[in-house]
Amino acid sequence: MSKEITSREADYSQWYNDIVIKADLAEHSAVRGCMVIKPNGYAIWEKMQAVLDKMFKDTGHQNAYFPLFIPKSFFSKEASHVEGFATECAVVTHYRLKNDGNGNIVVDETAKLDEELIVRPTSETIIWNTYKGWIQSYRDLPILINQWANVVRWEMRTRLFLRTAEFLWQEGHTAHATAQEAIEETERMLHIYADFAENWLAVPVIRGRKSPNERFAGALDTYCIEALMQDGKALQAGTSHFLGQNFAKAFDVKFTGRDGKLDHVWASSWGVSTRLMGALIMAHSDDSGLIIPPKLAPIQVVIVPIYKGDEDLAKITAYVNELTMRLKGLGVSVKYDDRDTQRPGFKFADYELKGVPIRIAIGGRDLENKTVEVARRDTKVKQTVPQEGLDIYIVKLLEDIQTAMFNKALAYRDDHITEANSYDEFKTLLDDKAGFISAHWDGNPETEQKIKEETKATIRCIPLDNKLEDGVCIYSGKPSTQRVLFARAY
Amino acid sequence: MSKEITSREADYSQWYNDIVIKADLAEHSAVRGCMVIKPNGYAIWEKMQAVLDKMFKDTGHQNAYFPLFIPKSFFSKEASHVEGFATECAVVTHYRLKNDGNGNIVVDETAKLDEELIVRPTSETIIWNTYKGWIQSYRDLPILINQWANVVRWEMRTRLFLRTAEFLWQEGHTAHATAQEAIEETERMLHIYADFAENWLAVPVIRGRKSPNERFAGALDTYCIEALMQDGKALQAGTSHFLGQNFAKAFDVKFTGRDGKLDHVWASSWGVSTRLMGALIMAHSDDSGLIIPPKLAPIQVVIVPIYKGDEDLAKITAYVNELTMRLKGLGVSVKYDDRDTQRPGFKFADYELKGVPIRIAIGGRDLENKTVEVARRDTKVKQTVPQEGLDIYIVKLLEDIQTAMFNKALAYRDDHITEANSYDEFKTLLDDKAGFISAHWDGNPETEQKIKEETKATIRCIPLDNKLEDGVCIYSGKPSTQRVLFARAY
Ligand SMILES: [Zn+2]
Ligand SMILES: [Zn+2]
Repeated sequence: MSKEITSREADYSQWYNDIVIKADLAEHSAVRGCMVIKPNGYAIWEKMQAVLDKMFKDTGHQNAYFPLFIPKSFFSKEASHVEGFATECAVVTHYRLKNDGNGNIVVDETAKLDEELIVRPTSETIIWNTYKGWIQSYRDLPILINQWANVVRWEMRTRLFLRTAEFLWQEGHTAHATAQEAIEETERMLHIYADFAENWLAVPVIRGRKSPNERFAGALDTYCIEALMQDGKALQAGTSHFLGQNFAKAFDVKFTGRDGKLDHVWASSWGVSTRLMGALIMAHSDDSGLIIPPKLAPIQVVIVPIYKGDEDLAKITAYVNELTMRLKGLGVSVKYDDRDTQRPGFKFADYELKGVPIRIAIGGRDLENKTVEVARRDTKVKQTVPQEGLDIYIVKLLEDIQTAMFNKALAYRDDHITEANSYDEFKTLLDDKAGFISAHWDGNPETEQKIKEETKATIRCIPLDNKLEDGVCIYSGKPSTQRVLFARAY
Repeated sequence: MSKEITSREADYSQWYNDIVIKADLAEHSAVRGCMVIKPNGYAIWEKMQAVLDKMFKDTGHQNAYFPLFIPKSFFSKEASHVEGFATECAVVTHYRLKNDGNGNIVVDETAKLDEELIVRPTSETIIWNTYKGWIQSYRDLPILINQWANVVRWEMRTRLFLRTAEFLWQEGHTAHATAQEAIEETERMLHIYADFAENWLAVPVIRGRKSPNERFAGALDTYCIEALMQDGKALQAGTSHFLGQNFAKAFDVKFTGRDGKLDHVWASSWGVSTRLMGALIMAHSDDSGLIIPPKLAPIQVVIVPIYKGDEDLAKITAYVNELTMRLKGLGVSVKYDDRDTQRPGFKFADYELKGVPIRIAIGGRDLENKTVEVARRDTKVKQTVPQEGLDIYIVKLLEDIQTAMFNKALAYRDDHITEANSYDEFKTLLDDKAGFISAHWDGNPETEQKIKEETKATIRCIPLDNKLEDGVCIYSGKPSTQRVLFARAY
């Protein structure tokens, strides 16, 4: 199989797909819309999970697990939720297969469920139905629970990691005694997501609120982090929802307050998914392959020996073993690739494709000179580095790469937030430059809908720190008090 | 809600259920047969996962993720697998819901799948269909992959953790160039499971092979670890299967060997599930509640202050903070429960119910005497212990508890392996003593089936280290070369 990757210039979409496939991150499965996450991809997802899980626990959350299936009737209980989620989903209608006598396996029609079960597209309904049994008094609040799970939404057009019928995610579901506490929680988790995106994924994000059109079905307010990909399209990397009392009312979850009065419970929910893998890939990678930020790289340093004979190799290996031990002691993950079935050039290209942040090559002359060759994946710069102090040098270089990747993405992002003051300018910018377009909007959902239909751009968010500024809507000419960020998006 | 637990003597089954519910480990959900794993239960499961995951990775395995759904036709491809698994399972037939116009959500009959999808009961078929694309040559082997996932088997009679329609598990699926390698892998994983059961769960297990009747559907050989619960019933705590070339043949997975010849690939699969939670609970707990082995306890030490006023509490808290820091430094997880809404007696009972291995109580007099009161959960023994050296004392005590729990379970187990030399003796033992019964069997599946029908006892396993011994089958009187272990089982 060719390891050639289509260039971003030639076909951005194919470039993305090539990286996912050729870096062995994921592939399509035999089941329409469902992906197989391969070990290389899953190892990165596991690192993301570990970091996020610690962040959640450090802020008082606990993990739990709720059923995969949701009774169909649950969806009807929250009016706006049903429209958003009870549409394209996997419906379980039977619970038995049988042999038809001719060697065929068929559905046993006698084993039809009284009520169909839906494979969870998100778990608000089943969780709030459960919380009803857990909450009587303010003493039972807050409930701060997270779930790591698979969910299914029957997407028609799928793309690996970005949009698949089944995906992996975490969903937080919290219950509070007051609206203010629930809002604080919603915002706290948004900032945790932003922190993760910027300091681990090395992807700068804009923190904001969705317009009503783009809100989660059942939320009073949806917060999000929005990232920019190298093709100028936005990607929503995480959302956090203030659900008000909607689900508590739908599932009749009340509590007795300190004052002895009964009230419905306040809620938040928040989630990030394997979509973050798409963000990681598209934000950083180049035409040679994947580039993984060091803090999420399963292998941070690969060492390749360059040798002529067994004696040469033995000397190199002795040095490498000692170096590896020092690096591991400093928390660096190292792989020594001394396979004799592949040549160094092949290995170099393969680790470049797979995004290992640092490659160390070491040959006979290096041993004599007490040096090694260090190549960083992000810039492809190679340097001859003394063996003395190499472990500290590598730790520092990993930090530098992490920072450089963030700064590069930040510079690109900041260069791609452009103000538009007319609809013509808006449309030209969208086609010629892309990125976020900061423009006045009259606050009317219909205006947003028209702009979306005509340009495929949506309001990505109203930034949290947005400054007020009088202006006129680029579409309707009506008065506006602030600019919002539009973009075409994944 | 009463925290009273039914005694084991009065009703073992109700005792188990009381512990699961009242220690907040899990509960039944609104979906038939599916459980909610509550934070207290999930935290133990997470500790199990972390330990097992490290064991798998230390032996060269990687994690990956395969689809939740399996096309119905896949089940027909492996003849014996289909009989075992294509029966009671969740069948997805449609992919859309719609509003019927009267405010009801109904299945959209226009969105019927051409081929039904089965929610995975186990993933051999979809994984081997995937491996087909990954394996061409011996250079692609071995493949050593594990998946953490949810699976669904439509069980009619369910019990929390022990038998639920949806459960969580890990399933390893490996591919090898030779039968010998696949068998070595199968045995390696069995020993890892046994190591985990004995050294972490503190549950002694018998390592053995299943009789053909009890083999995994599609396996040539099924290895298992069998544990004994306090009511004398056995529980299969993990299985590891040598699949031969069955799945490779069913999915046409061939490789070119070093000799240039094409051959089908050899396979193993192995798994443990949230059933281990059931084993943990039933092997160790008592009539006061759960007892968690220290190495899997999310909270290993709880500290309860006993105080009269704020000044008292401040002094105790100052000491506790310092103690906590020292304990955490030694890797001990500590909770300080200084809630003023509950009295010490309530807290003592609650942590006893929830199985925290060590409770430290400290009052004003303890401060004066430079002592604390230490209570261990397993024996309920309380001791006054000097504050000097307390941290080291606690670390040592946690180890002692872990060992004592294992030894206690081992003594019980060893006392409940009994030889029977006639069918009458066999039946009497089953009813009066229970446990494992070591008896001669003629090797005939029909004999095993008859014994099962008449006594509800099955062959749990043929121990790996079984000694050969001439004898006659207790049922048929035919000659036998070895005893096997029978038991009634969960
Ligand atoms: Zn936004
Ligand atoms: Zn066994």
